[in-house]
Amino acid sequence: MPLDNTETIAAIATPPGTGGIGIIRISGPASIGIACRLFHRKGIAGPAASHDLLSHRLTLGHICDPASGEILDEVLVVAMRSPRSFTGEDVVEIQAHGGPWLLRSILALVLDQGARLAEPGEFTRRAFLSGRMDLTQAEGMMDLIEARTSAARKMGSALLRGELGMEVSRLREALLELATRMAAEIDFPDDVGDLVDEGQVLQDLQEYYLPELRRLIRMGENGVRLREGLRIVIAGLPNAGKSSVMNRLLAMDRSIVTDIPGTTRDLVEEPLNLAGLPFVLTDTAGIRDSSDPIERMGVERAMESIRSADCVLLVMDARRGADREICLLEETIRSSPYLLVMNKKDLVDDCDAIALPSSWKPAARVSLSARSGEGMDALRKALTDLAGFSEVQHAALPNLRHRAAFERAAEALERVRAGMLSGHFWDLLSVDLHTAIQALGNVLGENADPDLLDRIFSGFCIGK
Amino acid sequence: MPLDNTETIAAIATPPGTGGIGIIRISGPASIGIACRLFHRKGIAGPAASHDLLSHRLTLGHICDPASGEILDEVLVVAMRSPRSFTGEDVVEIQAHGGPWLLRSILALVLDQGARLAEPGEFTRRAFLSGRMDLTQAEGMMDLIEARTSAARKMGSALLRGELGMEVSRLREALLELATRMAAEIDFPDDVGDLVDEGQVLQDLQEYYLPELRRLIRMGENGVRLREGLRIVIAGLPNAGKSSVMNRLLAMDRSIVTDIPGTTRDLVEEPLNLAGLPFVLTDTAGIRDSSDPIERMGVERAMESIRSADCVLLVMDARRGADREICLLEETIRSSPYLLVMNKKDLVDDCDAIALPSSWKPAARVSLSARSGEGMDALRKALTDLAGFSEVQHAALPNLRHRAAFERAAEALERVRAGMLSGHFWDLLSVDLHTAIQALGNVLGENADPDLLDRIFSGFCIGK
Repeated sequence: MPLDNTETIAAIATPPGTGGIGIIRISGPASIGIACRLFHRKGIAGPAASHDLLSHRLTLGHICDPASGEILDEVLVVAMRSPRSFTGEDVVEIQAHGGPWLLRSILALVLDQGARLAEPGEFTRRAFLSGRMDLTQAEGMMDLIEARTSAARKMGSALLRGELGMEVSRLREALLELATRMAAEIDFPDDVGDLVDEGQVLQDLQEYYLPELRRLIRMGENGVRLREGLRIVIAGLPNAGKSSVMNRLLAMDRSIVTDIPGTTRDLVEEPLNLAGLPFVLTDTAGIRDSSDPIERMGVERAMESIRSADCVLLVMDARRGADREICLLEETIRSSPYLLVMNKKDLVDDCDAIALPSSWKPAARVSLSARSGEGMDALRKALTDLAGFSEVQHAALPNLRHRAAFERAAEALERVRAGMLSGHFWDLLSVDLHTAIQALGNVLGENADPDLLDRIFSGFCIGK
Repeated sequence: MPLDNTETIAAIATPPGTGGIGIIRISGPASIGIACRLFHRKGIAGPAASHDLLSHRLTLGHICDPASGEILDEVLVVAMRSPRSFTGEDVVEIQAHGGPWLLRSILALVLDQGARLAEPGEFTRRAFLSGRMDLTQAEGMMDLIEARTSAARKMGSALLRGELGMEVSRLREALLELATRMAAEIDFPDDVGDLVDEGQVLQDLQEYYLPELRRLIRMGENGVRLREGLRIVIAGLPNAGKSSVMNRLLAMDRSIVTDIPGTTRDLVEEPLNLAGLPFVLTDTAGIRDSSDPIERMGVERAMESIRSADCVLLVMDARRGADREICLLEETIRSSPYLLVMNKKDLVDDCDAIALPSSWKPAARVSLSARSGEGMDALRKALTDLAGFSEVQHAALPNLRHRAAFERAAEALERVRAGMLSGHFWDLLSVDLHTAIQALGNVLGENADPDLLDRIFSGFCIGK
């Protein structure tokens, strides 16, 4: 069910709180009329007329309550007339002073004049429904607003520019064209000659469509990690200095550090921004057999967290070297990629020379002193290298929703390929081909059902 | 020392946090040049040229990092060319998506291009220094942004429009004109004849200038109360239901309510907005002789707080009537204006008929049940009536700083008047006259010293 676009919506579009400037955004057919009834141009008595608000031109004046005559604020008003606006509808923005109470008062007047309070993301939803952007662009805008690292910002910006959408469009157009020719061949097998070159189709599937989809799925994995941050879990024996390493990385005292083994019990989780890349750092309880039931629970949680980590930082006390206990621990974590951190290098003679079992295969080995900070830069570099985001920087990376659709499309095309190899009829294959086309259309938001749109846009802020 | 206005300043002008729209404001001679180097118009390759940015016209395009070529965001840019801008200088506003990280990244590019981060209130300070507004208007803008009630909003809006500034200007102009004539009379006593009609001056002082200043000082008292909220202190014997009355007024459970007398010890203070008027409500310990030292401290604090109250709510238990204890309490508070609240009306037969000593002079008497809520509306009305703000609504009320200047001016004019009555010479009186003129000039910010401006503008938010 499409939105009823005859409604005019309004909301405060700037962040909540106090600032220099606040903006009230109005969109819909009544927006200019509503603004005119509240807005008095500077030096001119009475409400403004529609022709006073030239499109895209800021006009100075006052917001005046038509009921009481009270002047609420001096404002700049700008109309952006359809279709040259964010939503594609007539839009008015009232730029007022950034007091929260003041903005709410002006918004209340706008609503009194017949606008309805916009739902979260409703402006963007209208921009999407009016064809101003596809769904990946709307999602990119959200990524951009929520970006906390330069990598996430670049990804959001590329999505917003439509880079992913265009790729998907091209893929979809090509499959659509193939489907059209298939349909002709099915309907008029004799009339139109050999419209579909089976060998060519098979080759295209194998060499273009499927690899392209697999690449998008792989990029989607990076996209998910870039949105959520690479999960780094710090593990080690008790008192190896895990919390000190965590605090050094965060450059703050997050974990409580003592000399007492077993100080950390709960998982301590913090976001970390390294060289513009997002990480989520988890400090865990030291792994050891313990009779203390609370500590045992801590160890259990640590093990769970290690299993779901993108990378483990195995922190060991350089003074102990590769003793029996740490070797047992290494065995339990070696199925995950891990970095070996030789801590307390200030307390041993030649930390880098300490011998390790040849069965250990850390991604890298770093000697450092969490106490003095020496060696921390090397650890940071090892982490960003390991993150392996470098090749995907600037790319419009798919999100979870996109990736799931690419997987559906790839499976369907895989069935087409298998069917062709087993000599199935076109009309059977055509069903799978259309499944793939539909999956790609879903990415762009074509024929999106309102529930999906609700799910996506309800995550937006009000006023967006 | 004036600001060095050759510097171009920039800041995020919208509130911090996440929203649909965020604005970066740039002001100063380099602002348009800086914006052009970062801004690419939609569909046009390369940075914009100065003539692309027509004054007051929104232009769509991208912000692009000139070093890396990275596109940060799709934005609307508007230039407001000197003198038609907020600061009077060339101003550019970049309207981007409202992500905090994104806005900081764009701001960083603007700073890289040679702008300096604006100090709090620096845009407004420049608007003031360039003569776009007087100091009362700048202060009104601040009031408006910080307004939490409609009364405060109206006051801020009136100040921002210059209503107080114009009154003060008129007063000052008239005194200046008098001073000029005095000076002529002093310098050329014979040449110009009788320039100053002493009788008329005395009459003007007594019937116009001094009453006008006294009115402004009185309005200043209202202004201070309207900015800070009317201080209402709830007092009463233990277990009279003071905390229940407080919670009812606030429509929330702020004070802990029990049946145990002496539950409240600390002063519990909360802002309250009644019919658009600001109050600060303070709940106090029940007043009684107690051997408990903590309770005795509570009683002491209650008494202090009563002495500084604008109004006391004397809450009594209707069942006890005007017994000895409450009569003693009434005596200690009667020097403050007070409202009598007969609580627990649901537990007595005819609450309004309970007799009170004739020496009691409450501003009003309200019967209510804090438990059921009955009668609370009457209490709210009594409070707003008592606030006595009605006559000053919509007025541009002076603040503490203004009031102090008006007091200086009134004292100086009082000395002029006294001097005239004792037959002092004009040149003696002229010193006092100039003191008054200077005090009024201070209100407007004339010859304001930088320390004063620092003090005022440092209270502003960054970006304002």
